[in-house]
Amino acid sequence: MNDLKEKSLNLHIGGKIEIKSKVKLEDKNDLALAYSPGVAYPCLEIAKDKELAYKYTAKSNTIAVITDGSAVLGLGNIGPDAAMPVMEGKCLLFKKFANVDAVPICIKANDTEELINTIKNIAPSFGGINLEDIAFPKCVEVETRLAEELDIPVFHDDQKGTAVVTVAALINAARLVGKPLNTLTIAMSGFGSAGSSIAKILKKIGVKTIYATNRKGIISKAKINDYDKVLVDMIEKGIIDSFDIKDNDSLAEIVKGADVFIGVSVADVLTVEMINTMNDKPIVFALANPNPEIKYEEAKKSKAYIIATGRSDYPNQINNVLAFPGIFRGILDARYKKITDEMCINASYAIANLIKDEINPEYIIPSVFDDRVALAVRKAIIETGE
Amino acid sequence: MNDLKEKSLNLHIGGKIEIKSKVKLEDKNDLALAYSPGVAYPCLEIAKDKELAYKYTAKSNTIAVITDGSAVLGLGNIGPDAAMPVMEGKCLLFKKFANVDAVPICIKANDTEELINTIKNIAPSFGGINLEDIAFPKCVEVETRLAEELDIPVFHDDQKGTAVVTVAALINAARLVGKPLNTLTIAMSGFGSAGSSIAKILKKIGVKTIYATNRKGIISKAKINDYDKVLVDMIEKGIIDSFDIKDNDSLAEIVKGADVFIGVSVADVLTVEMINTMNDKPIVFALANPNPEIKYEEAKKSKAYIIATGRSDYPNQINNVLAFPGIFRGILDARYKKITDEMCINASYAIANLIKDEINPEYIIPSVFDDRVALAVRKAIIETGE
Repeated sequence: MNDLKEKSLNLHIGGKIEIKSKVKLEDKNDLALAYSPGVAYPCLEIAKDKELAYKYTAKSNTIAVITDGSAVLGLGNIGPDAAMPVMEGKCLLFKKFANVDAVPICIKANDTEELINTIKNIAPSFGGINLEDIAFPKCVEVETRLAEELDIPVFHDDQKGTAVVTVAALINAARLVGKPLNTLTIAMSGFGSAGSSIAKILKKIGVKTIYATNRKGIISKAKINDYDKVLVDMIEKGIIDSFDIKDNDSLAEIVKGADVFIGVSVADVLTVEMINTMNDKPIVFALANPNPEIKYEEAKKSKAYIIATGRSDYPNQINNVLAFPGIFRGILDARYKKITDEMCINASYAIANLIKDEINPEYIIPSVFDDRVALAVRKAIIETGE
Repeated sequence: MNDLKEKSLNLHIGGKIEIKSKVKLEDKNDLALAYSPGVAYPCLEIAKDKELAYKYTAKSNTIAVITDGSAVLGLGNIGPDAAMPVMEGKCLLFKKFANVDAVPICIKANDTEELINTIKNIAPSFGGINLEDIAFPKCVEVETRLAEELDIPVFHDDQKGTAVVTVAALINAARLVGKPLNTLTIAMSGFGSAGSSIAKILKKIGVKTIYATNRKGIISKAKINDYDKVLVDMIEKGIIDSFDIKDNDSLAEIVKGADVFIGVSVADVLTVEMINTMNDKPIVFALANPNPEIKYEEAKKSKAYIIATGRSDYPNQINNVLAFPGIFRGILDARYKKITDEMCINASYAIANLIKDEINPEYIIPSVFDDRVALAVRKAIIETGE
């Protein structure tokens, strides 16, 4: 058993979170206030006006971190029971970085409709919902439907959270290489939850050209009949650009001449040779975790000018924890009902701008432990308005 | 605004519980263990063997406190949002008295089937389920079905929790008046969640004769066609005895000559005159809360020998908090899958026996803050075996 495995298993014994009382409960008087008979008063107030749940319960600071276990980390569909350590971990991070009380809920659901209904049914208990590790494209429907049908904010972190941080890093990377966003050609590997959301946000901030691949090769109008409904829709809306395949139907084809590579896929699909076919000062984001699309040491051998990964042991870690705590802190504090794309874009700029005067090829994104980040993101969310 | 109301509303601002981290999270190493990439190891272990969720997550010490808000305290069907203060209060008590981590979940469900399915779908997150404030007779179906269909313990506190404590008090009351349980005639007011469960347990410990009333008068074989299916079934199983109505179809009729009155109904349905028609040394449990079936001061004017209420400001408080924390502590520690009637009976005796050498008419049940209670209940549960 390797060292990380042993240490991690030991740390997890008994779980990572617990419930804590916020009120004193030492004698009969305390009991009469916090429980029967005094508790009837806040109940009656909320029965008269539901909004008072935000005042008289923990709802104003409590969210659910919800998964069905269908796409956990890079481990795939390991189911709700096995997903719990990740959900508890997420709840830890919410507390640590933004003092948000997050409750992990792993749901066993037979289909998308059942997952949506179960979340809707438990929603009265929470001030917001953070969806997590739900497979693509199911996650798109789940997030869209819940955001429409619930009166609390809903956020799928693997979509928008990843997008906020990736875009923040790209904003600074583009500044560093002196290329305006609207001049960039971007090649993407992987077009699931994260990829599709990154592309959507990039287009909204002015990027003109994005080509993408998934397991089936280059996403292209020519192959449109072979594709999922969601991808067809994205090509038609111009969120991905259709690539006119010339030599071969693979990543190498779209990487050639591109300014930026963004990988949110699997290990080892990018090579030094491929990077060396890119435009000058290539920006390489190899974000598959824990094993990136190209190993950091390999990428260093190429002409890549900026390299970012999802890992904490190399420079430029693209980590969602820079986004989700501050996003929910802002949403909860302002009591907004929706998390909009505009909020996400402003959050990306807030993260990027925090370090814009200090950026260099090994520092395009703040550290995970930079205390200013959650506050800056919170402020950006609140100032965006509903 | 009265003093209790003002104090209680103030205490409830921001809610009563929060999430707390059990692990250190100060640097990149901590993050690598508690979250990515280390968190993948416990996930993979649980994916191989679901039972390891009890080892590597908080499941072994975490339960859900669940309601649909259909029968909250004496307030009725106030809905899931307004029920939350009670659920948070319950979670506080679980933590305080038995160090159980309890998560409050208020469910919006259109019907019984949807409530059952929602609870089943979120069950993988929890080591047990405490149902709360669900209307009778729906609660019977919900508890029965979930106990059958889930592999974690399920307990409806308003049924079995109330029964455990009421029966414990009755065991000591019967000792005090020198009447064996199998000689008692018991008259009940109220036959919902609590009443039906109390009767069921009393019959199992040897009580022979129980008459009961509900909103529609005396529960009797003669009226069987008018009754709910659940009540018909209980008469047929001998859980309630059919009373041959003589003079009038009301509580007064069954109280006459009875040894014990147990009220789990509404305020002011019992009078001094009615108590004075009871057998000698009457035992009067007027448990409607906060306003009992007869005011304590009134009952004192009658020939009642022992008086118990649900209130903390009079002697002999019958409070569920004597039961549910120890029951779940025992169930979780032993990792039993079911909470059986035999466990409940043993828990009643454990509570009663704790003070059996000190009992007097004003002390038939231990204090809510008696530290020994949860431990004694825990032991009784574990020793009962599955």
